[in-house]
Parts: sequence; structure tokens; C-alpha cells
Amino acid sequence: MITVNGRKYSLPGRTVVVICYDGCDPNYIADSAIRGISPAITSMARTGFYASGLSAMPSFTNPNNVSIVCGAPPSVHGISGNYWFDREAGKEVMMVNAGPLAAPTILAEMAKAGVKVAAVTAKDKLRGALAAGLVGPGNVGIAFSAEKADQCTLAENGVDAADVMSGRMLPDQYSPDLSLFVLDAGVRLVESGRADLLYLSLSDFVQHAHAPGARESDDFMQAVHARVARLLGLGATVGIVADHGMTDLSLHGGEPNILYLGALLDNRFGEGRTKVICPITDPFVRHHGALGGFVRVHILDRLDRDEVLRFISSTPGVHTALVREEACRKLELNFEREGDIAVIGAKGVALGSHKGAHQLEQLAGARLRSHGSFAERDIPFVVSRPIKAAYLQERGDAPIYNYDIFHFVLNGAE
Amino acid sequence: MITVNGRKYSLPGRTVVVICYDGCDPNYIADSAIRGISPAITSMARTGFYASGLSAMPSFTNPNNVSIVCGAPPSVHGISGNYWFDREAGKEVMMVNAGPLAAPTILAEMAKAGVKVAAVTAKDKLRGALAAGLVGPGNVGIAFSAEKADQCTLAENGVDAADVMSGRMLPDQYSPDLSLFVLDAGVRLVESGRADLLYLSLSDFVQHAHAPGARESDDFMQAVHARVARLLGLGATVGIVADHGMTDLSLHGGEPNILYLGALLDNRFGEGRTKVICPITDPFVRHHGALGGFVRVHILDRLDRDEVLRFISSTPGVHTALVREEACRKLELNFEREGDIAVIGAKGVALGSHKGAHQLEQLAGARLRSHGSFAERDIPFVVSRPIKAAYLQERGDAPIYNYDIFHFVLNGAE
Repeated sequence: MITVNGRKYSLPGRTVVVICYDGCDPNYIADSAIRGISPAITSMARTGFYASGLSAMPSFTNPNNVSIVCGAPPSVHGISGNYWFDREAGKEVMMVNAGPLAAPTILAEMAKAGVKVAAVTAKDKLRGALAAGLVGPGNVGIAFSAEKADQCTLAENGVDAADVMSGRMLPDQYSPDLSLFVLDAGVRLVESGRADLLYLSLSDFVQHAHAPGARESDDFMQAVHARVARLLGLGATVGIVADHGMTDLSLHGGEPNILYLGALLDNRFGEGRTKVICPITDPFVRHHGALGGFVRVHILDRLDRDEVLRFISSTPGVHTALVREEACRKLELNFEREGDIAVIGAKGVALGSHKGAHQLEQLAGARLRSHGSFAERDIPFVVSRPIKAAYLQERGDAPIYNYDIFHFVLNGAE
Repeated sequence: MITVNGRKYSLPGRTVVVICYDGCDPNYIADSAIRGISPAITSMARTGFYASGLSAMPSFTNPNNVSIVCGAPPSVHGISGNYWFDREAGKEVMMVNAGPLAAPTILAEMAKAGVKVAAVTAKDKLRGALAAGLVGPGNVGIAFSAEKADQCTLAENGVDAADVMSGRMLPDQYSPDLSLFVLDAGVRLVESGRADLLYLSLSDFVQHAHAPGARESDDFMQAVHARVARLLGLGATVGIVADHGMTDLSLHGGEPNILYLGALLDNRFGEGRTKVICPITDPFVRHHGALGGFVRVHILDRLDRDEVLRFISSTPGVHTALVREEACRKLELNFEREGDIAVIGAKGVALGSHKGAHQLEQLAGARLRSHGSFAERDIPFVVSRPIKAAYLQERGDAPIYNYDIFHFVLNGAE
């Protein structure tokens, strides 16, 4: 047993693989089960464990990946978005570059305890955060991204590029293959006995672009299925969660349904008096044009916060607006990095700053599908083995979060 | 002040109109605000009060309409769906025909207190329930439906057909005009001073068929806007809520995304051992083919309930499954009418019984849009006047339900 962020975890008795199926709304798993697209995952649900779980808020990639590997929400580890407005410096900072995590990861603590650990991510932006304490001087784990697989070194990643690539092409960062590369790497690490505890984090490229039932979604789901089947065939206990779900944020005709909150605030209170931060912003803008269901509003001068709150709350398209302290309390967020007001969009509504601040042309006419709000908080939670009745009973009615997956798989699985 | 179902209500100081905008997902109001389709409603939100509220569960029409007029959830009034499986009689019964409501309505109690009350509904199935204690021998209110407006009598409806029709055609039950007839009737009742407290309940025909941004949705929203503007112009305090939201339950290509739970249960436990009741079933099947996000499972013989629960819970496409007592406790449902297991579908998934039991051909190739689950629980909650700060402060963090609308409008509005 080791303790990480106040929770106890058993060391893995057999190979354990946790997959973060990025952007996999429960809808995809449901449709796949109904139409028989992914028998391996459906059978995991039937003979193991399946539940509708919750993401941490906001329902974005980085906060949830870090939550999963820490087994704790953003209030504990500090990563509550991709970008963050540093009040003191007066500039926007990418959170995973803002310094070390405020909390240790399960991966690093397991490696310290002698477990062979590997973390493979689709995008390199995440690898840094997830690899903390896992690779580098004195550490013995493996951590690399599909995006920069060709730059791996033994010193930096615990494995070198030739080994990781094994004759394969580097996947395009805007391709389903980016995720499949991650899963294939996971399979090879298990086959070769180089890892007993794996975290495999995919990309939501396909889910941003295609609804359940699209040929592209089916193809991707089948490809994921085949790799999950391989991992199960190798005897691994597999847990699958998503970092967040996905919702179509378009109108009937396909135009994105965007509430430009920055423009409304400028109009009401004057330009430059507030600043809207879209913390979904990331270097992968083609996925979503930096539009999602969660933004932070910073008040830049002496406006009355309650007045700004009332204005935002009375805006159709806003689901919930919370002042900083409330947001931290109710959504388990990090105080330092929280805005003065956290704004959660209504289902089907994208929150933006100003027209022109979002690269809509990157959508190339496709429907906007994105996440960040409560509507994308539901995530699938699947374990390939049954969970002990005593474990479930002890949990009682507590909601199941995606960041409980390591606890379930390590402590709860039969 | 009068007391109804344990809550105190002030008598209306000015004319009060509550509109139940059937199937009006907050999305429609947001899109209308963004694109300027319904200035009257948007301006109500800005200068009055706007919030994202919750429906009673299940997010169906009858339970929510009755909850709104009772100011209380189904546990109080007994209407927890359209259809219900009467265990003793061994047959399905339409709830609003199953006898009187278990609770008085705000409408009837207001009429008793001398207020001129009118209830106008789109569909006649609802009128009966809503009119309890309002019309008929010894009562002096007005209650009729657009569907059967041509059959109104003074004795039965408090107003006669010629008066109600006033030269207009009877609207088709599958037309936007069914709802507009209701609003126009409301406007005339206010104009002629025949009612001081009105409940106007629309139909979700347009929302079932058309997403926000469709020409039909825009046209309907504009038509509703014009009538709301009229009511505001007449000096009425207007409150608008929806009975439930609306979600697209179709796959990429347009096929409905249906989980046939009855078929799965038959396959697992044997035919005839369980019965799936789809309580959205109503005489208006063309709206949704009796497919929604909430079903009740009855166990017909000695199956182990926990085993059935585990099976249902582990089915992708199911969001939550609750045994009868839990469903009643957590969702404020009526015990007698609850199934052995209540099943709530995942966002985007329709729950059905068996292929063939649903009249999919009635959809005529249109995308299935429906409701019933948690995903359609968000509703717009709009009041044309500001709500007193003291009133809001006293409520604190309590969620706002659609069935709080009379309380807000009568007690909270400035």
C-alpha cells in the first residue's frame, strides 16, 4: 500500500492499464454497445464494471488528466484549465508550464515503490505534467508522447526514439492515429514486460469532429476496441474513463452557437474593464477554435463583482456563474488560478470572448463539438473486472469521478 | 396569503401570467437572445430575472405541468408520468385519468380565495388534471384546451366555444398554432379582464421536430415573442418556465439512438419476466414514438431485484438505475406508481422497450428529439420583474425548480 494525496492504493498484483479515452462521451460507448462496434469494451461493462461517472470541472483535458493521475480534483493539484490569467504578472500562462504540480502523482509514487510505471500521452503538452517524478535523473519510469515520439531519449523519457517508433511513422497530430499510436505503444510495453502500471492518454480529435454513428467514429471505436482486446488478451486489468464528454454546440444549419461573453461585458461595463479567459485554449485550436462551455471572467478595475455576477447570471446561455470562492468550494478548483467569476455555459452553448478572437475558420465548416460545461461532465467509467461488493458498499452513494479510476482498479477490482 | 401544499402564496396584486413553454430547452432562449429572435423574452431576462432551473423528474410534460400548478414535485401530487403500470389491475393506466390529484392546485386555491383564474392548455389530456377544483359545479374559474376549444361549454369550462373560438379555426393538434392559440386566448382573457391569474401551457410540437436555429424554431419563437410582448404591454407580470428541455437523440446519419431495454432484459432473464413501461407514451406519439430518456422496469416474477439492477446499471446507455425506494427518495416520486427499478438514460440515448413497440415510422425520417432524462432537466426560468434581493437571499443555494415559478412571481417579484 502507498498513500497519495490522502488516499491509499494497493500496488498492482497484475498488470494494470488505465486508459483516458479523451472526449469519449458515454454516448459513444452506448452507441457502440447497441450496434456492436466495440465488443471488448461492451464485454468489459457486462462482466466487469460500468457506471456513468463524472469529470472534474471544468470538463477539459488537462485538469482531468492531471486529476486522474493524482486521484484528486484541481483544488489539490492546481491544474484547473489549459490557460490561466496570472494576475500579478498580468499575462496568460499555460498551466502545465507554470511550475511543478502542487501534488504528487500516483504514477510517480508507484514508481518510487518499485512498480514499473509507464505514461504515454497523445499530446506532448500533457506529458510534462504527467511525467513529474516518473522520468529524469534518479527516476526509472517511462513517459513519452505520440506527438514527439521521434524525439524520445532514454534520459528524458526512459525509452529511446528508435524503440518507441519501431519503424512506424510519426502520427499526424490531427489524426486518429495519434491515439492509436499511444495504445499500440501500451500494448508493446505490456508484451515486453517493461511496465506493470500504465496510463495511456488519447486525443479527442475524432470526437471533436464526428458524432456517434459517423463512419469515422465507428472506425476509431473499432480500432480502439482491437487494442483493448489485445491488452485484455495479455491478462491486463483495464480501466477506461474519459477526461470529459462531448456535445454538439451548433445550430440547426451548422453555425456554431456562440455566446460572446467578452463582447457583452464590454458593451455593458465598458471596454477593458473585464477580461474573459477561455481556459480551453491550447495549441490544438483546430479541435475547437478555443470554444468550450467554461470561461473565467477577471475584473480589471473597481467594478462591483456582484453587479457583474448578476449581469452574467441573467444572460441566457449561461447555466451557472459563481464568484471565485464559491467556484472553488463547489467545483473543487484552485483559488490562485480561479477568475473573479467562473461561468459555465448552458448545454449546447459555446462560451467565447469576442468575435474574431476565435479561429472559427479552423473548423473549416464542420459543426462545432466541444466541452467544458456540466453537459460534458458525464463520462464512461469501465473496469474489466468486477468490483468487490464490499468496496462498492463502503463507497455508498458517493459520486464516481474519473479520478477514482486508479483507486477502483487497484483497490476495488476482484 | 393562501397556503397550498405547505407553501404560502400572496394573492396577485396585478395580473399574473405563468407560461409553461413546453419543451423549451434553455438552448432556444440562448440562441434567441444571441441572434435577437425574441427581444421580449431576452429583455425579461435582463430587466427581470433569469436562471437556469430544473424540472421535476422524469423530465416529461404531465408530471411537470402538474408540479408547476401544485408548486410541488410528483411525490406530493402523484403524477409521475403519462402512463403507469397498475400492479393490482395488471394494466397500464393513463395517470391523469386515474382519479383526482393527490394534492390541490394553486389555481383552484386561488379561485377559492376569490381570484379570477384561468388555465389554458394546448392538449386536452392535461386540462382535466389542471382544472381540478377550478371549473365545474360551484367553481368559477376558466379552463379549456386549444385541442378541444370548439367543444367548450360554460358549465364545463367556464367559457363557451363561440367565445373561445371567436371566429378562429380549431388548430391542428400537430401544428405550432396549437400553442399560439393558447397564448392568444390568454391575451384575450387578460384584455377582457376575465382573469387575473393565468396558466398557459403550450405544446412541444416544434421543439420535438426542430433544433434551435431552424426556420421553424425561429418562426415559432418570434410568434411566442409577439404574444409575450402583448401580455407585458397589458401590464401583466409574466413568468416563463419549461416543463422539460429537449435533446437530439439521433446518430450522425439521423437514425435514432435507441437502447431497447426490454429486449435486453428478455434476453438476459427470459421473456415475460420483466416489463418495461415507457411513461412518455401518450396519445401524441407523432412527437417522439414513445421514446424518451426515462423508463420504469417492473419485475413480474421472483427475479432478484438487485441482480436486475446490476444488469441494468452495467448497460452502456443507462445513466442511472434506482430501485423503487431510492427513486422515490432521490427524485421525489410517488411510491405507488413507481416501478421496481427506475432507469434514466444517458444524454443522447433514447430508452425503449422492444423494436416494433415504438412507432418509429411516425417520425417520418426526422431526427428523434426527445426528453425524460437528466439531460433535459435544465429549463429556462424567466420572470418579467426583478426578484427581491431578500427573497433570493432567503432561498440561498436551493435549486430553482420550474414548480417554484408561481412562488417567485407571486411572492418574490418586485
